Amino acid sequence: MNIALLPGDGIGPEVIDQAVKVVKAIGQKFGHQISFKEAVVGAAAIDATGLPYPDSTHEIAAASDAVLFGAIGDPKYDNDPKAKVRPEQGLLLMRQKLGLFANVRPTFTFPSLVHKSPLKLDRVEGVDFVFFRELTGGVYFGEPRGRNEQGTKAFDTNVYSKEEITRLARMGFEAAQKRRKLLTCVDKANVMATSRLWRETVQELAPEYPDVKVEYEFVDAVAMRLIQWPKAYDVLITENLFGDILTDEASVISGSMGLMPSASLGTSIKLFEPIHGSYPQAAGKDIANPLATVLSAAMMFEYAFDLKEEAQLISDVVNQSLAEGYVTEDIADGGPSYKTSQVGDWLA
Amino acid sequence: MNIALLPGDGIGPEVIDQAVKVVKAIGQKFGHQISFKEAVVGAAAIDATGLPYPDSTHEIAAASDAVLFGAIGDPKYDNDPKAKVRPEQGLLLMRQKLGLFANVRPTFTFPSLVHKSPLKLDRVEGVDFVFFRELTGGVYFGEPRGRNEQGTKAFDTNVYSKEEITRLARMGFEAAQKRRKLLTCVDKANVMATSRLWRETVQELAPEYPDVKVEYEFVDAVAMRLIQWPKAYDVLITENLFGDILTDEASVISGSMGLMPSASLGTSIKLFEPIHGSYPQAAGKDIANPLATVLSAAMMFEYAFDLKEEAQLISDVVNQSLAEGYVTEDIADGGPSYKTSQVGDWLA
Ligand SMILES: CC(C)[C@H](C(=O)O)[C@@H](O)C(=O)O
Ligand SMILES: CC(C)[C@H](C(=O)O)[C@@H](O)C(=O)O
Repeated sequence: MNIALLPGDGIGPEVIDQAVKVVKAIGQKFGHQISFKEAVVGAAAIDATGLPYPDSTHEIAAASDAVLFGAIGDPKYDNDPKAKVRPEQGLLLMRQKLGLFANVRPTFTFPSLVHKSPLKLDRVEGVDFVFFRELTGGVYFGEPRGRNEQGTKAFDTNVYSKEEITRLARMGFEAAQKRRKLLTCVDKANVMATSRLWRETVQELAPEYPDVKVEYEFVDAVAMRLIQWPKAYDVLITENLFGDILTDEASVISGSMGLMPSASLGTSIKLFEPIHGSYPQAAGKDIANPLATVLSAAMMFEYAFDLKEEAQLISDVVNQSLAEGYVTEDIADGGPSYKTSQVGDWLA
Repeated sequence: MNIALLPGDGIGPEVIDQAVKVVKAIGQKFGHQISFKEAVVGAAAIDATGLPYPDSTHEIAAASDAVLFGAIGDPKYDNDPKAKVRPEQGLLLMRQKLGLFANVRPTFTFPSLVHKSPLKLDRVEGVDFVFFRELTGGVYFGEPRGRNEQGTKAFDTNVYSKEEITRLARMGFEAAQKRRKLLTCVDKANVMATSRLWRETVQELAPEYPDVKVEYEFVDAVAMRLIQWPKAYDVLITENLFGDILTDEASVISGSMGLMPSASLGTSIKLFEPIHGSYPQAAGKDIANPLATVLSAAMMFEYAFDLKEEAQLISDVVNQSLAEGYVTEDIADGGPSYKTSQVGDWLA
């Protein structure tokens, strides 16, 4: 197994380190040959090469069997709207060049952490849904985009083809078939032409999945219902920008934001990453929570290598660390807490 | 005072009726001459005239001193992506033709209702922020939009001019000066050209309001923080689509979604409406909660006629109805409840 490591910025390198320890331990236990190749991305890559996703990084990622990715983002670029190169461009280029069109973001709860949710217990206990966010289309990549000559007007373009919608929607339908058989198509079909194509395409596909119940909801309604009654959802499919907003909203309801993993899937390459950001304030302090990245490694064993036992073992050991309170400060509830690296060692 | 009444669809007519009772009572008590003119909009207007915002309606609204608006939307149009005329087009046309560029949506809590919030008490108690959502620009009106010839590709355009951003942002700055002096500019400047123009424009205006602290946050981060720690916010400004999603998300956190009013302001016309939708399942049953519409009438006295005492009296009587439990079923908590029309009579 050739794994590309793209730690990125902020706490990325620290949390990736812990995932690597765990992956190595799994390799030893199960007798897998695992090799790692590291490459820069994001602000780290700009600093090193001037580009946020250099060709050398792309070659390593494209040649790998799976990519483990940390986080991207550096505040020094955020408040400079005129910066020519931004770390996030690296993330977007990476998604586009690797063809990672589906971002799979589960939201589930850990019994020992559910009390940390901002929501009341009865709303959040047992929540279990998964978003399929389209990741290589929409307003993120649509052309034209930019300014008029005087710079007084700016524009972006949102574009979707039936093909792009279909391949993402099929993933959602298939996932729903293996789960509770409810698919929610999230759009803004009362306003946007792209959304109407989404809805139309999903309506055309639905008869092929007669066992799946399909619901259509507007993005603003979903933003409400995710908080009011998140248990109502099973599988949700949506376009890139709506997915960006809603998956982040969803990530805080479980009370375990620092723990949620994600997968970005394409036709060949598969990438795994924690959903949290680069958390620059914590960078280098050995205090970041590595569990989301470790669970992303578990997703990697399952989705990239079809190794369920390995994935399950990682999941189990994460649960054990939670049960025994061998955790980082952010989830220690004032009890004893451990460093990022200590948690990684313990898990490994 | 010439007030245009646009009840719209679903529960719109019922809740507008109650607001009218209250406005009339205020008129009597304070000796104001108030006249009402009613007009159709939305599905009701399509049924009556074939158009969702007919000229006859526009004339009445444009000639008024203030518009009281109910709700728009009928499910018979929702799942028909090919429908040529949709009720929502009436809403959008109305906003555009009346030049209502700023949608003002406060979120605050009622002590007697805060326990109904899906959020834990410590997160939501005392929440008090207000969104200024841009309402006549962005992807809602941008051109080109539509399909390619074969219908296999759809596109929307998001456009903003510096001018549009400036007039909305100034309203936000001024509101912040009268409140807790914190302004949050919500954008997606790490991806969208329009967002970068938003951020740049707000940065340029900031020095004119030295007493206001300005923060810039990405829309996905705000979607999270609105749930995690809503008390952090004071005044938020944002573009049309982000505002649509976030104000709806915000509306459920207070526990009093059915109670939140809003104002849509332009250079001349001012419109007031509850933020809830047309709630078609409840239409005609005399069970809808009229308080958001009644509180919108309070906002009308304040924003359109600068009559603070009248506004305060309406607010007070609403609070009294809550304290005495003279409320509709949705907020009665299993206790005695009253019909929409009974609550209206009581308030009047
Ligand atoms: C950093 C940013 C460009 C990115 C996105 O908007 O996709 C992030 O928010 C995410 O969701 O991975
Ligand atoms: C009905 C719809 C077009 C409208 C919008 O998206 O603006 C509604 O959601 C709102 O927020 O008033």
